[in-house]
Amino acid sequence: MTTVDSEGARLARIALSCLVEPGDRELGTLVRAVGPAAALERVTGGGVSERLRDSVAVRRTGTGSVPADPVRLAEGALERAERLGARIVTPEDDEWPGQLGDLVALSREGGPGGPVDRDTDPPLAIWVRGAAPLDEAFGRSVAVVGARAATGYGTHVATELGYGLAERGWTVVSGGAFGIDTAAHRAALSAGGLTAAVLACGVDRPYPVGNMSLFERLLDEGLLVSEWPAGAAPHRHRFLIRNRVIAAATRGTVVVEAAGRSGARQTLGRARRLGRSAMAVPGPVTSHASAGCHEELRRLDTRLVTNVAEILEEVGRIGDDLAPATPTAQRPHDRLDPLSAQVLDAVLPGRTRTAEEIAAAAGVTAREARRSLPFLVNGGFVAPHEGGYRLARLG
Amino acid sequence: MTTVDSEGARLARIALSCLVEPGDRELGTLVRAVGPAAALERVTGGGVSERLRDSVAVRRTGTGSVPADPVRLAEGALERAERLGARIVTPEDDEWPGQLGDLVALSREGGPGGPVDRDTDPPLAIWVRGAAPLDEAFGRSVAVVGARAATGYGTHVATELGYGLAERGWTVVSGGAFGIDTAAHRAALSAGGLTAAVLACGVDRPYPVGNMSLFERLLDEGLLVSEWPAGAAPHRHRFLIRNRVIAAATRGTVVVEAAGRSGARQTLGRARRLGRSAMAVPGPVTSHASAGCHEELRRLDTRLVTNVAEILEEVGRIGDDLAPATPTAQRPHDRLDPLSAQVLDAVLPGRTRTAEEIAAAAGVTAREARRSLPFLVNGGFVAPHEGGYRLARLG
Repeated sequence: MTTVDSEGARLARIALSCLVEPGDRELGTLVRAVGPAAALERVTGGGVSERLRDSVAVRRTGTGSVPADPVRLAEGALERAERLGARIVTPEDDEWPGQLGDLVALSREGGPGGPVDRDTDPPLAIWVRGAAPLDEAFGRSVAVVGARAATGYGTHVATELGYGLAERGWTVVSGGAFGIDTAAHRAALSAGGLTAAVLACGVDRPYPVGNMSLFERLLDEGLLVSEWPAGAAPHRHRFLIRNRVIAAATRGTVVVEAAGRSGARQTLGRARRLGRSAMAVPGPVTSHASAGCHEELRRLDTRLVTNVAEILEEVGRIGDDLAPATPTAQRPHDRLDPLSAQVLDAVLPGRTRTAEEIAAAAGVTAREARRSLPFLVNGGFVAPHEGGYRLARLG
Repeated sequence: MTTVDSEGARLARIALSCLVEPGDRELGTLVRAVGPAAALERVTGGGVSERLRDSVAVRRTGTGSVPADPVRLAEGALERAERLGARIVTPEDDEWPGQLGDLVALSREGGPGGPVDRDTDPPLAIWVRGAAPLDEAFGRSVAVVGARAATGYGTHVATELGYGLAERGWTVVSGGAFGIDTAAHRAALSAGGLTAAVLACGVDRPYPVGNMSLFERLLDEGLLVSEWPAGAAPHRHRFLIRNRVIAAATRGTVVVEAAGRSGARQTLGRARRLGRSAMAVPGPVTSHASAGCHEELRRLDTRLVTNVAEILEEVGRIGDDLAPATPTAQRPHDRLDPLSAQVLDAVLPGRTRTAEEIAAAAGVTAREARRSLPFLVNGGFVAPHEGGYRLARLG
């Protein structure tokens, strides 16, 4: 569906992505009102706030002296993407994941303020490296996120979850960071499944550099995506802006380990506000790396999950991926009706008791005892002995 | 307040405790309707169900041939208690813990049926060994219960909780079993606090025998209590009947470790149905000993707790025992306003940038950058250099 109009809209969105930091609500509102092309004209001309106009002007000029032509910026971005083997996906493209539009509902006033909740508008464009179409990859996906300073326990659990989700055909989405993110990505790759790293910088400079071998595998077998143009640096505030995409793209977010202060908790909070499943894995209360998970789980709107089946129960369709009840050991005793079990408790191993004595000891009536005992004899629990009963030898 | 009438009621309740298993709803309803003395006449005469009459008849006769005189039974129980240094407490006594009356509200039909929920009526009498008055001991108490097959982790946590609760003047109530119960009791004793074991057998034969040294300390420094007469054996079904007293006597129940199947979970369920706080401690999802806790925590009506403060937040009065927020490390960066933090992220350590370059990199307006930078210089974050700015060396 690349008509001349939609191609113009695509170019305008790409240009706007080069001129304004992602998530800008004023810009997003304008784009929704007048369309991308007209919005681009306004931000480079007039009719927007001083803040937005100044911000765009600085970006257009950069370190040069003449403002760049916005269409030239977009074409440059497309050329650069092509050289990288990347593509730029916008809402005009078939593979655009429509659920990102839910971000419109995140109110600026709803949160604690500050940069954390300032930039929550949907992305205008997404740079992608990797073969899988975005809509398919994100359509059945779960975010597995957590602490960089993960413990062995957290790494183990993230690996189990990443592997199990990928094995069942779910895309594992995370942030490409050390620790929990890396364990989840790597496990999904091991399962031969799909996994996507949503970056807070250009897809040509995935961060952290120490994860380069992981990023190279993601290029071949998974996805590297970002709403920042190629070349963008991983500034600190960008991780918080990025997190909303992880929350919005997926059906739910699982935090595996998180300290008291944590970006993963911000992602979880955004998932919750977006109506996605907010989940956390518990851990030892003696572990600081689980303290953030436990704080989240003390809220009523975070669901505790311990395995893949429980995650899928949250995010899957009813009847599709239901968690089986935890199996518990069945003992022969447990199959008895309550009365018989009570009677059986009063039968002794080494001493013979009459039905009346058993009734008295069990606290049941003699009639109840006399009714139960033959049943217990038939079941092999009790042996008749010298006109009374004693416990049968088991095994 | 030992009038002739109340002494008669006391004796009747004690006699009834010797003749009927605790928790019997028919008997409890009768006692509430006509008083203990008249109820005793009826169960030994007529006007009750065949089940109840037969049950009482069996107990009166026991292994002898002549039905015992109920008053003689009560006097015998009192004499036996006196020989033990125990006392028998009934609702006629000042130290009776009135909150046990809440058990009336537990509907027989409300639960899954079977012995678990069959016998939920309030106790008629409680045998007590230990000095502390029952009402004072239970008035400010928390139940700490859990698996016999506790892990090192569970034992550690139960010890921390038992110690901390006792240290703050809360009575630690548990069941005297191996594992979590023992750790909680022992820790409370270590803290010099009060702890009570609610037994499922006579206070003269506390179970398990392997815990005898603990029970001896509880006699001296804590409480051993039971609704069964001295001499009663620890039949299996009695533990489930007993659990309702642990749930009802305390302001809340904390399960520290529990497998999928667990008596501690039954106690928790009863606490919940009684409107007490139902709490559980999480653990590693890889530990079977925490599986029951996690199943409980996946319900919305179980509160996750990780420490004593969080327990007291649940059971304490508002403003009295509030948990402090988990402290998180503050970094200098965190004290900056959002805009300044964003600007700071664009300042490089080794290269000088102009305010305009910093603004472009940070995605803010030049005006915003020029306003923030002097503030960052003053704060020691940024150093002016050759007409621009670079990151200040810290420390």
